[in-house]
Amino acid sequence: MEFITKDFLLNGDTARALYHEAAAGLPIIDYHCHIQASHIADNVSFDNLTRVWLADDHYKWTALRWNGVPERLITGDGSDYEKFLAYARTLPECIGNPLHHWSHLELAKYFGYKGHLTEATAEEVWGLANRSLGPEGLCARDFMVQAKVESICTTDDPADNLKAHKTLAEGDFSIKVLPAFRPDKAIEIQKPGFCSYLERLGAAADVRIGGLDDLLQAFLGRMDAFESLGCRVSDHGLTRIPWAPCDEKEAGEIFSACLGGEALSDLQAEKYHTFLLSWLAAEYAKRGWVMQLHFGVLRDINPTLYEAIGEDAGGDAMGDAPCGERLAGFLKSLERKKALPKMILYSINPGDNAVIDTLAGCFENGEARGKLQHGCAWWFNDTKIGMEAHLQTLASLSVLGSFVGMLTDSRSFLSYTRHDYFRRILCNYVGGLVDRGEYPRDYRRLERIIRGICYENAKVYFDL
Amino acid sequence: MEFITKDFLLNGDTARALYHEAAAGLPIIDYHCHIQASHIADNVSFDNLTRVWLADDHYKWTALRWNGVPERLITGDGSDYEKFLAYARTLPECIGNPLHHWSHLELAKYFGYKGHLTEATAEEVWGLANRSLGPEGLCARDFMVQAKVESICTTDDPADNLKAHKTLAEGDFSIKVLPAFRPDKAIEIQKPGFCSYLERLGAAADVRIGGLDDLLQAFLGRMDAFESLGCRVSDHGLTRIPWAPCDEKEAGEIFSACLGGEALSDLQAEKYHTFLLSWLAAEYAKRGWVMQLHFGVLRDINPTLYEAIGEDAGGDAMGDAPCGERLAGFLKSLERKKALPKMILYSINPGDNAVIDTLAGCFENGEARGKLQHGCAWWFNDTKIGMEAHLQTLASLSVLGSFVGMLTDSRSFLSYTRHDYFRRILCNYVGGLVDRGEYPRDYRRLERIIRGICYENAKVYFDL
Amino acid sequence: MEFITKDFLLNGDTARALYHEAAAGLPIIDYHCHIQASHIADNVSFDNLTRVWLADDHYKWTALRWNGVPERLITGDGSDYEKFLAYARTLPECIGNPLHHWSHLELAKYFGYKGHLTEATAEEVWGLANRSLGPEGLCARDFMVQAKVESICTTDDPADNLKAHKTLAEGDFSIKVLPAFRPDKAIEIQKPGFCSYLERLGAAADVRIGGLDDLLQAFLGRMDAFESLGCRVSDHGLTRIPWAPCDEKEAGEIFSACLGGEALSDLQAEKYHTFLLSWLAAEYAKRGWVMQLHFGVLRDINPTLYEAIGEDAGGDAMGDAPCGERLAGFLKSLERKKALPKMILYSINPGDNAVIDTLAGCFENGEARGKLQHGCAWWFNDTKIGMEAHLQTLASLSVLGSFVGMLTDSRSFLSYTRHDYFRRILCNYVGGLVDRGEYPRDYRRLERIIRGICYENAKVYFDL
Repeated sequence: MEFITKDFLLNGDTARALYHEAAAGLPIIDYHCHIQASHIADNVSFDNLTRVWLADDHYKWTALRWNGVPERLITGDGSDYEKFLAYARTLPECIGNPLHHWSHLELAKYFGYKGHLTEATAEEVWGLANRSLGPEGLCARDFMVQAKVESICTTDDPADNLKAHKTLAEGDFSIKVLPAFRPDKAIEIQKPGFCSYLERLGAAADVRIGGLDDLLQAFLGRMDAFESLGCRVSDHGLTRIPWAPCDEKEAGEIFSACLGGEALSDLQAEKYHTFLLSWLAAEYAKRGWVMQLHFGVLRDINPTLYEAIGEDAGGDAMGDAPCGERLAGFLKSLERKKALPKMILYSINPGDNAVIDTLAGCFENGEARGKLQHGCAWWFNDTKIGMEAHLQTLASLSVLGSFVGMLTDSRSFLSYTRHDYFRRILCNYVGGLVDRGEYPRDYRRLERIIRGICYENAKVYFDL
Repeated sequence: MEFITKDFLLNGDTARALYHEAAAGLPIIDYHCHIQASHIADNVSFDNLTRVWLADDHYKWTALRWNGVPERLITGDGSDYEKFLAYARTLPECIGNPLHHWSHLELAKYFGYKGHLTEATAEEVWGLANRSLGPEGLCARDFMVQAKVESICTTDDPADNLKAHKTLAEGDFSIKVLPAFRPDKAIEIQKPGFCSYLERLGAAADVRIGGLDDLLQAFLGRMDAFESLGCRVSDHGLTRIPWAPCDEKEAGEIFSACLGGEALSDLQAEKYHTFLLSWLAAEYAKRGWVMQLHFGVLRDINPTLYEAIGEDAGGDAMGDAPCGERLAGFLKSLERKKALPKMILYSINPGDNAVIDTLAGCFENGEARGKLQHGCAWWFNDTKIGMEAHLQTLASLSVLGSFVGMLTDSRSFLSYTRHDYFRRILCNYVGGLVDRGEYPRDYRRLERIIRGICYENAKVYFDL
Repeated sequence: MEFITKDFLLNGDTARALYHEAAAGLPIIDYHCHIQASHIADNVSFDNLTRVWLADDHYKWTALRWNGVPERLITGDGSDYEKFLAYARTLPECIGNPLHHWSHLELAKYFGYKGHLTEATAEEVWGLANRSLGPEGLCARDFMVQAKVESICTTDDPADNLKAHKTLAEGDFSIKVLPAFRPDKAIEIQKPGFCSYLERLGAAADVRIGGLDDLLQAFLGRMDAFESLGCRVSDHGLTRIPWAPCDEKEAGEIFSACLGGEALSDLQAEKYHTFLLSWLAAEYAKRGWVMQLHFGVLRDINPTLYEAIGEDAGGDAMGDAPCGERLAGFLKSLERKKALPKMILYSINPGDNAVIDTLAGCFENGEARGKLQHGCAWWFNDTKIGMEAHLQTLASLSVLGSFVGMLTDSRSFLSYTRHDYFRRILCNYVGGLVDRGEYPRDYRRLERIIRGICYENAKVYFDL
């Protein structure tokens, strides 16, 4: 078989039929990404392939470092072409890495390049791609349109004024660009900068935050503002699920102590965190928002990178603290208060897959199909083996037909091919079941299931 | 390939030959299940398919909830047909879930239905199955005979009077129905109802339980009673392996404190638990009983379900607390006292597979072939991928030929097809090794290995 | 397919071509093993197959115990032939176990036996092998030469005088036999015998160890001695990664307290351990040595075996304590001090695979290609499924082309076939990617990648 043909990752006639006839042509709902709305509002352009492809992508940076490339050619003062060339030399060594696939899917989709990017072809690819870039070439919106994106949910701080979202809402761009509510900074009470963050949040909400009440008030105001721009979903990035039950009174005291300049103990911080996450969950439930929990990452563990580059520099790793009891405690308490929203759980550690599936299963009910979801294979797991493991476990332990499917989680306008990658893997998984006699060869039903997972379930679930 | 043919799950001639010639026709020893002996003694009948198939099956309930079915049609006051119809609508969405396979294996084996249960075929299946049910149709014993069951071990509380087992022992039913000793309630010292449970246990054993001595005396009496009815095996359901070493004197003080109405600390409870489990293990060793440890489940975490339905309602999830050091400590202390019985270890978390295999390996010796066993893929792992992972890891780290094989763990008379499911997966695994040149094509030896794992090893191991 | 043909484990033309044309003929660099250098210096011979094959191999002992063989025929006073016969009876039951493969690869490579070792063929194999053994037959060096070994790194205590290594360095044996620095005994401060060990270490270094300063001085002296004999690598066997930050002053006080006869708390021991491991890491970094960390094993948990046989008796199991945060803390602190050496991380628990890959990824940089490595599948994972899982995860999360590949970790002169086993699995993995269209069919590049992983990367990485 040739490399990345139209039947890439599709090992069987059933898989191929399902992909080409049901999955490939569907629009994309990218319900969690890190695209900046302002880039869409401004319809930014890109000077060259390095700018659009390598400049913000810590996945690629990490690969370059593994291959022994000096930092100068990664995030340093090397020229854009030098950096591209370093990547072209590294990529062929990344055999079996999804970067190798994504990169070629992206070169093919957006620039029509069908070969193998190596040192030998670097110059050709550089020229080819750059001819399609620049102010007259493919700009932010073009990538989205070309990928058949229907709507995306960005990731936004409650203190953000959502100016770009407003601009977009009032404009005529056909793709919905909705904000998503990510209040991590208001939760990380032990981090330096917490108090100055509260000022920014208060300013955005027009509330002076002098106590916990004010914070909650500010949140309500910002949620209204987000909702008015179409927000349907929140997101939380957590090192671990907080679980130290705490009532509003105690949380208020901890919050006031912090504002008063006291250093908090880890237990106090966790209590505050538990309270606030529970309070927010209840609010999301009232509004019918979906709550996303992303947990388990060990962040910024390489001080050299952190000092030179900051966050999201490639210095994050997979944690392995057990999550079951904490998550069970958190969900149980919300259920007891009838305050459990629709929720998507993502752990960075694939060893948690089955734990999450079974925990979600405990809380399913008639309120929504797949009310609790196990989010698609995330970040380090966003690989062929990671997606396959996620799908197999999910199918074994849940009702696969209710799954809301893929997202990019990406900062890049070229990453929509990850939806294609997922769709191929999904069709291959389902086609394999049929070909092995593990599911009836009922094409209409199979296509319905595929369309559901790739597109329709998300539309219903998020009410988009 | 068509859906669920006679060669279901058998991908190769070797697998097919091994299954059809060696495995398929073997009797079943179901050494761990939750069938009620009284249902066999009374040879109960079932009004309709919902009664025999959906009424007690929390696996199916969870699938219905994932699919957004309201509780009324699951455990509520919906009619039996409405509930069946909800399941018929849900089942095709469960692509890749073992429920989808088991359900169809059961419909085929007991009711001769070879099609796909969907909304469209629901009425046909309902009529077909119900014609075989009712007082004149298939009753409890018929399902067992039809499945070629040779013997089963039920799960019984020491306080149980074993009346149904006595009736069966004196009757002429050809299948052995043996009790198994499950003293969880005497161990869960922090649960409400512990003291009233002790009264019931005391009454059953004709001992007034005023101290730990009395409890142990009562246990001995009940073990004798269980043994006289053929008991060969005990079972313990544990959230986690207790490991807080404690001598009899201290355990006695803790027990007395509890009887005296004192609230116990978690450490005290764990000490009592450690002592009692160790004491029981030593007793089992003396009697040649097999000790089963099932651990790791987070139980009853959905309060809504628990309050409405009680235990075993679908509100249980997979835990992920590390088990290695605790289990090592427990086994080491038994070995040191020469009090380690034959033992089967089951963790709910498949991430523990290799840990358990290697721990068991440390304690193997000439006393029995496979003296310590890694129990077959349990509950949430009782899936195709779960069984394959279990077998692959077990084969890689132990002597697969010594494995005692499958059990149903089920409350249902229709679940014996799970043995068939397991046998197919086992034959497919072994056949694959041969077909890939990883084991010699020596059919007589292969058949002996398969027969051992499917039937003969258990017969020897449990001394049935 | 027949059993263990020349295309064993190679499922496809690409895999076969890569193996036969690129991998099979390469020399072996065995950079971590437990061969005793004195056995090579003395070029020891072996009386019979049991002596060379079963006498020191706890993998085989565990299999025999699983199969119910009494200890007399394993490590007891049974005759060598009785022991061999017990193994011949057990081996066919080990279907799917790498022992079954390794054993047959070894019989084929060194003794030309191509059949299946069973009870029926035991006598034939015994005779055949023994004709090649004895003082006139295959001796230690012959096995190494026949396997095309180029260099090995043994595992040596700093207190060892390295006499055999000196003899070898001065002799004419063509294979490099280099020492590796394993100072576990100087780290295990709570173990009985710590103080008497310090005396031995002091004697070897010609330093009287009366305080921590002296210990560090002794280490420096021994490192120089090791380096003069070609040492390029250290090794640490750890139950868990120590992570309790501690400066030299506090470590010195703890060390002195220990020498003064005080019992240390676990925290004190961990602080000392953290300090010493960090200090050694910094020293290794200065010298350009590679630091190996092997962690997670629960050792000597069967007291019966330990008392009868001692360490490495088959009483070790896989632990499952989380490692992510501790390892992140340790690596972060070294990086902050610019004292992070080249490092290879090995966890005994395959659930840590992805955690290690991502942690290593955080610390890669231009200093070396693959500066931090995830060591090949170790001990219990040194199986087909273990190696495949390791390779798949490593490829998905790193740059596979930078991997330094396989080692034996073995005490046996026959174990070099494990490199062959690895090379086949690697070629099969890579060939599969190509055959499925997941990598271009560019043979020259593929062969370069294979040769790198099997041989050349290690040569560069260890600077051999």
